[in-house]
Amino acid sequence: MSGLTARYQLYGRPGSFGKKAEGIALGLTVGSWTDLPQLEQEQLKQHKGTVESVTEFGDSPHPLKPELIRAEVEIRYPAANFSADLPAILTTVFGKLSLDGEVKLLDLIFDEELLARFPGPRFGIEGIREKLGVHDRPLVMSIFKGVIGRDLGYLADQLRQQALGGVDLVKDDEILFDNPQTPFEERIVRGKEVLEQVYKETGHRTLYAANLTGRTSGLRDKARKARELGADALLFNVHAYGLDVLQELAEDAEVGLPLMAHPAFSGAFTSSPFYGVATELALGKLTRIAGADFSLFPSPYGSVALEKNAALALGRELVSDSPLKRTFPVPSAGIHPGLVPLLFEDFGTDSIINAGGGVHGHPDGAAGGGRAFRQAVDAVLAGTSLEEAAASHDELKTALKLWG
Amino acid sequence: MSGLTARYQLYGRPGSFGKKAEGIALGLTVGSWTDLPQLEQEQLKQHKGTVESVTEFGDSPHPLKPELIRAEVEIRYPAANFSADLPAILTTVFGKLSLDGEVKLLDLIFDEELLARFPGPRFGIEGIREKLGVHDRPLVMSIFKGVIGRDLGYLADQLRQQALGGVDLVKDDEILFDNPQTPFEERIVRGKEVLEQVYKETGHRTLYAANLTGRTSGLRDKARKARELGADALLFNVHAYGLDVLQELAEDAEVGLPLMAHPAFSGAFTSSPFYGVATELALGKLTRIAGADFSLFPSPYGSVALEKNAALALGRELVSDSPLKRTFPVPSAGIHPGLVPLLFEDFGTDSIINAGGGVHGHPDGAAGGGRAFRQAVDAVLAGTSLEEAAASHDELKTALKLWG
Ligand SMILES: [Mg+2]
Ligand SMILES: [Mg+2]
Repeated sequence: MSGLTARYQLYGRPGSFGKKAEGIALGLTVGSWTDLPQLEQEQLKQHKGTVESVTEFGDSPHPLKPELIRAEVEIRYPAANFSADLPAILTTVFGKLSLDGEVKLLDLIFDEELLARFPGPRFGIEGIREKLGVHDRPLVMSIFKGVIGRDLGYLADQLRQQALGGVDLVKDDEILFDNPQTPFEERIVRGKEVLEQVYKETGHRTLYAANLTGRTSGLRDKARKARELGADALLFNVHAYGLDVLQELAEDAEVGLPLMAHPAFSGAFTSSPFYGVATELALGKLTRIAGADFSLFPSPYGSVALEKNAALALGRELVSDSPLKRTFPVPSAGIHPGLVPLLFEDFGTDSIINAGGGVHGHPDGAAGGGRAFRQAVDAVLAGTSLEEAAASHDELKTALKLWG
Repeated sequence: MSGLTARYQLYGRPGSFGKKAEGIALGLTVGSWTDLPQLEQEQLKQHKGTVESVTEFGDSPHPLKPELIRAEVEIRYPAANFSADLPAILTTVFGKLSLDGEVKLLDLIFDEELLARFPGPRFGIEGIREKLGVHDRPLVMSIFKGVIGRDLGYLADQLRQQALGGVDLVKDDEILFDNPQTPFEERIVRGKEVLEQVYKETGHRTLYAANLTGRTSGLRDKARKARELGADALLFNVHAYGLDVLQELAEDAEVGLPLMAHPAFSGAFTSSPFYGVATELALGKLTRIAGADFSLFPSPYGSVALEKNAALALGRELVSDSPLKRTFPVPSAGIHPGLVPLLFEDFGTDSIINAGGGVHGHPDGAAGGGRAFRQAVDAVLAGTSLEEAAASHDELKTALKLWG
């Protein structure tokens, strides 16, 4: 019988969790059990939630209520209870329960049969590498900066500088919406011109991810239009819309563009240690299942930082063995060229090195910033230390001097 | 210049909040300021976020880090920076910021011009009362119970019993999705027959809110079809989809049905005292702006309870003076007839008394449970104590004996 297993974190008194878990398993499925006649139990058996495991962590007291300890419980939900979509699944496993005190949803383990109902990334890491013709190194990405209120010429210049530095991808700022100065379609058309020109000049190919925004029901047509106009990829603030909206974009063959999931708003439900959804589930597994080709998340290095273990677990979710294609991990914020060896170590070759300030803040401008990153990547691939490489690469030398 | 003001809660050292707020105001709008040339400042002025207020609460230390205190800051965002939709607004005011440590979004104050871009409820409290012909008392609602895995006959019986008790509304269980045993359309058609029959027998009109579920892009057609079939209202797990999806349903004249927003999943981003979004903003103001005619939320009385002040503030948001129609507050969970005087006091006449166990768990069945509630409401309206009323009303007497 197909289904999925949810893992939760609870706090409570030692020995109290089995009963609590049983209450959840019934409350979120058939409602009651022991008082049902035998015949009804027989009929409802295939809909009943079941407690799979209860693990108490006696050495993890609640930080504010020392009489309580942490526990993890696993509950299995039959797929017969919900339609195979994320809104139904989230409502089942964490609808009412999300409101029931200190309970955090840590993981969802999908049966193969259920997982097969979800698309996963259309391109995945291999597909993106194919588009770029880059197979053996992390990709380098940079972000438009300070573009609110600016005109198309300003954006075009910024894009050109970034591309000249050799970055593989440039993404819109997630807070740039459709606006009269830099409308979505014009950004795509002008961006394409700029990047074609850079390609002609340098032979280097950069992809531009434009921010897909607006009303929900208009997104699909807008995305299709973007593709017609030759867009490379789309950035999407999935958590301000809903995971199912991302999934519908991923499933649509007429959209057919790489999708870059931005973590905007996700901190609202992932940041608390006691409530909400684990980061690695929200920005990792579910973002991949719903079909993002890229998942951005706070790196563990910057000031807006994710706890290191959570960031690594998230990265693993995106590339772990699965029938689904792999999603590019994009640890973001606080990234400068000096961190490239650490990024290799933490996220591997199949990841994206993404910088804003670390590109634009370079004393030689965004082009210099991009070059410094590419030089750092080449150094790691060659087994050279950054210090050594900096001796013969000015932009890297400047970056290391500035950021360490 | 139109816009909106966001109020945030922060923790930090006394005296640190002005600088922090300034950083947010710039970081979420023009990016930088003091280093910009005069001419660019002139151009970007209308896009710059501004700190409107900083209020430190010196007597509110952080519970785990006593060197930090609580503060509230207000930041104004020009409407020129975003399109007039909730995903753009949430991404602007709480996109990246939601990931930036302990910061909670407490309120959004919309300028009139911006607010006018949102529909609010299509029916509102007056419109719902019109449909029912009930103008002078709180409405009474009950919820299907234990319907997963049951057939249409079972649901029909349960609906009939509830309606016979005199409840005004019956809603689907939010975890009942489209399924072969009780498909959405058949539930509507059969529900209508049952309620027509009860009306013929008793003269009492009950509305049934069917759970609108499935893939996002299919919801609109499904809702239109529901209306064609004569549905009374739709239940919607808005937070498993996205507020904009609710808004699109509310705006669609061909849907044209009362919409009941369920709080499923919202606890993930409203429960923490440190992170996420204030309950009264998420389930109150934004749910009303997006167009829900009813907003369900945890009552302050049950085991799955909202803190009393938050519940009252939420209730007020739904009915406060505004160009938008009013949304029915539906405090839910832990409601039994003995609480009716308190519900009147806390949420007033323009609210809905909603019970699950308090209807179905009545010793005289759901019909008895409904009657007990109606008797309690009548008693309060007549200025009689429940104890007095119970002397001549058996169902109420039984309920008070059982639940107090
Ligand atoms: Mg940004
Ligand atoms: Mg329910």
